[in-house]
Amino acid sequence: MRSDKANGLLGFILFGLLAGACGGGDKVVLPPAPPASPPPDPARTAASIDKSDPRSSSAPSAGRLLTSDEGMWLLNDFPSDRLGKLHGFTPSQEWLDHVRLSAARVGMGCSGSFVSPNGLVMTNHHCASRCIEQLSTAKKDYIASGFYAKSDKDEVKCPEIEINQLASITDVTDRVLGATKGLTGARFNDANKAEQSKIEKECAKSDDMRCDVVTLYRGGRYHLYKYQRFQDVRLAFAPEFASAFFGGDPDNFNFPRYDLDVTFLRVYKDGKPLSGGHYFKWSPSGAKEGDLTFVAGHPHQTSRGITIAEFEFLRDVELPSKLLRLSEWRGLLTEFQTKGPEQKRIAGSRLFGIENSLKGIKGRVEALRDPEVFGKKTADEKELRAKVESDPAMKEAYGGAWDAIAEAEKKLRNIESRYIMLEKAEGFWSDLFDQSRRLLRASTEFAKPNEQRLREYVDSRKPAITQKVTSTAPIYDELEILTLTAALTGMRAELGPDDAFVRKVLGKDTPRELATRVVKGSKLRDPKVRKALFEGGEAAVSASKDTMIEFARLVEPDARAVRKTYEDDVEAVVKKNAELIAKARFQVYGTSVYPDATGTLRLSFGQVRGWEEAGRKVTPITTLGGAFDRATGKDPFALPKSWIDNKAKLDLSTPFNFSTTNDIIGGNSGSPVIDQEGRIVGLIFDGNIHSLGGDYAYDGKDNRAVSVHSAALLETLGNIYSASRIVDEIKASR
Amino acid sequence: MRSDKANGLLGFILFGLLAGACGGGDKVVLPPAPPASPPPDPARTAASIDKSDPRSSSAPSAGRLLTSDEGMWLLNDFPSDRLGKLHGFTPSQEWLDHVRLSAARVGMGCSGSFVSPNGLVMTNHHCASRCIEQLSTAKKDYIASGFYAKSDKDEVKCPEIEINQLASITDVTDRVLGATKGLTGARFNDANKAEQSKIEKECAKSDDMRCDVVTLYRGGRYHLYKYQRFQDVRLAFAPEFASAFFGGDPDNFNFPRYDLDVTFLRVYKDGKPLSGGHYFKWSPSGAKEGDLTFVAGHPHQTSRGITIAEFEFLRDVELPSKLLRLSEWRGLLTEFQTKGPEQKRIAGSRLFGIENSLKGIKGRVEALRDPEVFGKKTADEKELRAKVESDPAMKEAYGGAWDAIAEAEKKLRNIESRYIMLEKAEGFWSDLFDQSRRLLRASTEFAKPNEQRLREYVDSRKPAITQKVTSTAPIYDELEILTLTAALTGMRAELGPDDAFVRKVLGKDTPRELATRVVKGSKLRDPKVRKALFEGGEAAVSASKDTMIEFARLVEPDARAVRKTYEDDVEAVVKKNAELIAKARFQVYGTSVYPDATGTLRLSFGQVRGWEEAGRKVTPITTLGGAFDRATGKDPFALPKSWIDNKAKLDLSTPFNFSTTNDIIGGNSGSPVIDQEGRIVGLIFDGNIHSLGGDYAYDGKDNRAVSVHSAALLETLGNIYSASRIVDEIKASR
Repeated sequence: MRSDKANGLLGFILFGLLAGACGGGDKVVLPPAPPASPPPDPARTAASIDKSDPRSSSAPSAGRLLTSDEGMWLLNDFPSDRLGKLHGFTPSQEWLDHVRLSAARVGMGCSGSFVSPNGLVMTNHHCASRCIEQLSTAKKDYIASGFYAKSDKDEVKCPEIEINQLASITDVTDRVLGATKGLTGARFNDANKAEQSKIEKECAKSDDMRCDVVTLYRGGRYHLYKYQRFQDVRLAFAPEFASAFFGGDPDNFNFPRYDLDVTFLRVYKDGKPLSGGHYFKWSPSGAKEGDLTFVAGHPHQTSRGITIAEFEFLRDVELPSKLLRLSEWRGLLTEFQTKGPEQKRIAGSRLFGIENSLKGIKGRVEALRDPEVFGKKTADEKELRAKVESDPAMKEAYGGAWDAIAEAEKKLRNIESRYIMLEKAEGFWSDLFDQSRRLLRASTEFAKPNEQRLREYVDSRKPAITQKVTSTAPIYDELEILTLTAALTGMRAELGPDDAFVRKVLGKDTPRELATRVVKGSKLRDPKVRKALFEGGEAAVSASKDTMIEFARLVEPDARAVRKTYEDDVEAVVKKNAELIAKARFQVYGTSVYPDATGTLRLSFGQVRGWEEAGRKVTPITTLGGAFDRATGKDPFALPKSWIDNKAKLDLSTPFNFSTTNDIIGGNSGSPVIDQEGRIVGLIFDGNIHSLGGDYAYDGKDNRAVSVHSAALLETLGNIYSASRIVDEIKASR
Repeated sequence: MRSDKANGLLGFILFGLLAGACGGGDKVVLPPAPPASPPPDPARTAASIDKSDPRSSSAPSAGRLLTSDEGMWLLNDFPSDRLGKLHGFTPSQEWLDHVRLSAARVGMGCSGSFVSPNGLVMTNHHCASRCIEQLSTAKKDYIASGFYAKSDKDEVKCPEIEINQLASITDVTDRVLGATKGLTGARFNDANKAEQSKIEKECAKSDDMRCDVVTLYRGGRYHLYKYQRFQDVRLAFAPEFASAFFGGDPDNFNFPRYDLDVTFLRVYKDGKPLSGGHYFKWSPSGAKEGDLTFVAGHPHQTSRGITIAEFEFLRDVELPSKLLRLSEWRGLLTEFQTKGPEQKRIAGSRLFGIENSLKGIKGRVEALRDPEVFGKKTADEKELRAKVESDPAMKEAYGGAWDAIAEAEKKLRNIESRYIMLEKAEGFWSDLFDQSRRLLRASTEFAKPNEQRLREYVDSRKPAITQKVTSTAPIYDELEILTLTAALTGMRAELGPDDAFVRKVLGKDTPRELATRVVKGSKLRDPKVRKALFEGGEAAVSASKDTMIEFARLVEPDARAVRKTYEDDVEAVVKKNAELIAKARFQVYGTSVYPDATGTLRLSFGQVRGWEEAGRKVTPITTLGGAFDRATGKDPFALPKSWIDNKAKLDLSTPFNFSTTNDIIGGNSGSPVIDQEGRIVGLIFDGNIHSLGGDYAYDGKDNRAVSVHSAALLETLGNIYSASRIVDEIKASR
């Protein structure tokens, strides 16, 4: 899904940022777990694990299978006691605060970590690949060749990457609750959003602060996350794509693995490297089998607490249609890449993003279609409903919630195509369209009082919007026409050629004709033109005759109309009733649990451990030598020349990638893996195939997070890439 | 799915032949309704309608919703009495025999009809489009320009089209039953197939006879279908693709429609037009709203009698993975077509086939995911199982059948990817591969006794195989490499890069390298080379060093191994138990019903009627004038120049397309629509979107067949195409 929306809930692009992988905008998922909802109770309610009792798997029974390492925990509500009982380590609040301040939010959907006192940030290559591509040209392709800045001066600014550091978390539950007291339906929804916007505006006193109200437990709690915002982020080091993504799509989500999926960025402030902040030190040896590991990162979203009706909507409607679009786009871009080296280059990160999503969503759909998972979810819901029905007071208060959500999901089925195509912009896959809609909406929304705006245009989001508008990232007409043509064709197929909206936008044009006309005629590929319109506000934008602005303007009333229907008839109902179910669950099962993932900082714990695959033991750690064994010399199993040339210098027994039981999901890409002394032992970049079902339930039996080992990072940076400046900086601070 | 298999059950390419649309071979569907199975009882059992009682919808209750026009009836077991009660017309056996002999089976999955005493056969453009494409060159593109032979001499032979006329139907149930008495498992399966091969061989005394044993009621009955076989089939007339498929993919399966989806072929015998056979006369006025209509054609397959376990396999495994492949291939070919006019031309019919299948399967999946359809199927099965359980004798005889099938479907889930990729050749999408496998298998199979061969290589299939081997249809390297690369990439993704078979075939090659090497190195694009190998038999083929033959040889043991597992562990179990369920159903519900479609001649009745769509009445007949109203001048809504130029000559009020309640499905494409006097009133070419669910249940409320009106055929042939020779021939014989 694509849109300008930039709220806390980042969509379902798995294990990675991939802003623009399937379009230019952020990825925002359809409702099942809506971004915000009203509060029932100060107690935590939504997810599925008892925080204090390590044996809570046995009780209560609601099918809540518990493996001990389950949980994406809040940094301000971490189960230290539980961890102590399970693994003999009880972190202090000081330890947790240090982790919070050393962790980083990267781009629009990835994680990272500060690893030196000079603003050096470590994340995944695939989290920064869009930047690396944007800095490349037909003559100098850093995706292919890699990038290394020999001095600070050679570090180059990424046009669209923002890094955030979580400065504080404040509970604002009472305030949000107070604002919606006694309200229902659209009025409740509006008041709820307005209060959040208000809180955020009061908090973000300057452009270098970012404030988000985060809805936890589907409305059980509201926390205000205040971040330090850094927009001057520069590229310091990236290996070749062939090494970062060795094994390519075939190996993605698989293990054993041999990927150097790393990029080093540096945060600048006032033109100088950031200095003096918190950062993670580096472990001398890295992780060993059986070690206790922590992962601090920003998992986008899990749906462990959704109802069966929402589950079915995902399984039968939303994800299958998304898969079909992605498959077709994969075919288009694959064949586009055969047209020449330049086409291969400019479509690279998009195709990567599509294949990554495709494989990830396939895994999720398989989990949804697994009779066992479905049976367990159904039994859980049945049990809770039966308990609610058996108590007159609970029945009165919560009994109707499931049917109300099911009714809303039915309505959603009717508007889903239109909502996805028009408002989520899947029908207009094009960077220029995204820019046009952003300018158009910014011009009208910024003219309104803060609380009455669309949530993604409130004042606290303005710096991120400005960065997007003024981005120097190149836009390629050939690719724009391809993607917009495909999207328009898909929209016509979804809505039908006789749909009034389709007729309005296409007229007598074919999709390709329309796409060609609006792309070729637009001047918006020039950031100066966009900046002028942005600063000119409503007057400038409404006077613009730019072909793409005119096109976005044509789309606008229909997109807003279906958004309104969605928000009033679906979102508001799901919010309200999800909250009731959360309350009921708390009342029935008691105790405190972790909330579903919300794209915000969480801490998970686990161990370096393999698993059994079809009766065969998978060992948890690979070595650098294994990469050479696996290499065929042919893409995607070709190691780059730098590896071949420097093989002799390497200690081939160095641990390379490893698997842990940490409970992670898409968005955790780039997360640091640390030991109990808070030292870097690895870098999350993937999960195994079983981790994909983690969206719906964590199964410690075979769900594994996959990381690059800290020792391999230093070994390769030093002996393959001669990136001594980076290696020294890390070693100096360890 | 793709293979050399050419048994009666033609797969799920909907509303069309499209041999090679997604590959070169016939389309054969996965097991749910296996091609043959052993016999329980002389009574008909499988499907869902009482043949004699027009009000049978009310009883028995097994959710067997009956709308009066439901049914794809056998020509030798037609419910004349029922029809008399419903519509006041009681056809005689003579009338039925005339229909049988005037109907035609076209190509490898379409229908048609004789419409003159001189061998003129009418079918759909999309049933003959592969021939039209094969006769075209870069210089003369008959797909774009249309084709009209001004005299017999100008008629050109289609390289791969065969036409069959159903000479007789004989019940051979006792014989097949006798051969398998007391056998189970693989031995039962082998004996069952061997006996069918034997019967067919005895029947087909010469190459111009084709004999197929057809399994009806999932093993309840076996009928021997004996056809006159015609392999000299020539193209007489085809309109431009733009007119035949006006509205393209967006309008496909929609109505109102404006398509001239017709082609006229002519059957030759001994170098002269066939003369003196049965044929349908032409109605002077054609169909009017409310008229009684008959459709005689070859519906491929319906799955109205499958179990829930089979239903779930289709819904959750087979069809979704097929959809993803088709979507990706659609993207590939769409982008391939942008490379130039020649690429556009050579990929045309494949892309059409893919889009047609895609839309058709989407509709089927939607039906499978419809909670109402699923609920009804579940209730049906539950009721029947409960009745079986309540009777000790029935419980003993049939009680275990559903679980046995469910168990087999579980096994199928484990082998499905490999079976589809290797044996169904989805992993080797290429005409050259299909030719290689055909030569390879023919060489080994023809060396065995007839009864021990793979079913698709028995003697009675030899003429069809010979036609394929010696076909002069062009093969384009560029397209071969594209499709084989995509298929190999898909196979690697499905089976995993570490799969032993994948490693064996790919070695250190990329899919594109392997595809390029085996395509470029092969000489099999030359029919003379293929003919020599075919005639040289096992010695010649096993000595061949042709790159594609060698590749097919490499694949062969693995493909045969998974086929054997499938046949022994899945097919045999499903056959045996489907037969038991059929028996149980008959015992419980009694009476006679129609069997699920089997790709053989059926007769359905219905009426010219519209339906209600979202509260709006859809009128059942469009006019030629409507096509001009809908035209935008842009593909796919561009009428060809011939239409624009000759508009003034046309009576724009002439009925063009119309909808009827006839119960049809894919394979019925090209079927004649006749009135009760046996005269042509139309030509089936599509169904509406609701007809797609007809695979699982017929709903007369909105399931509609869509046809070209007989009046529009004459009006356009005469006044647009000046095809006076054809018009006169039809008029003369009316």
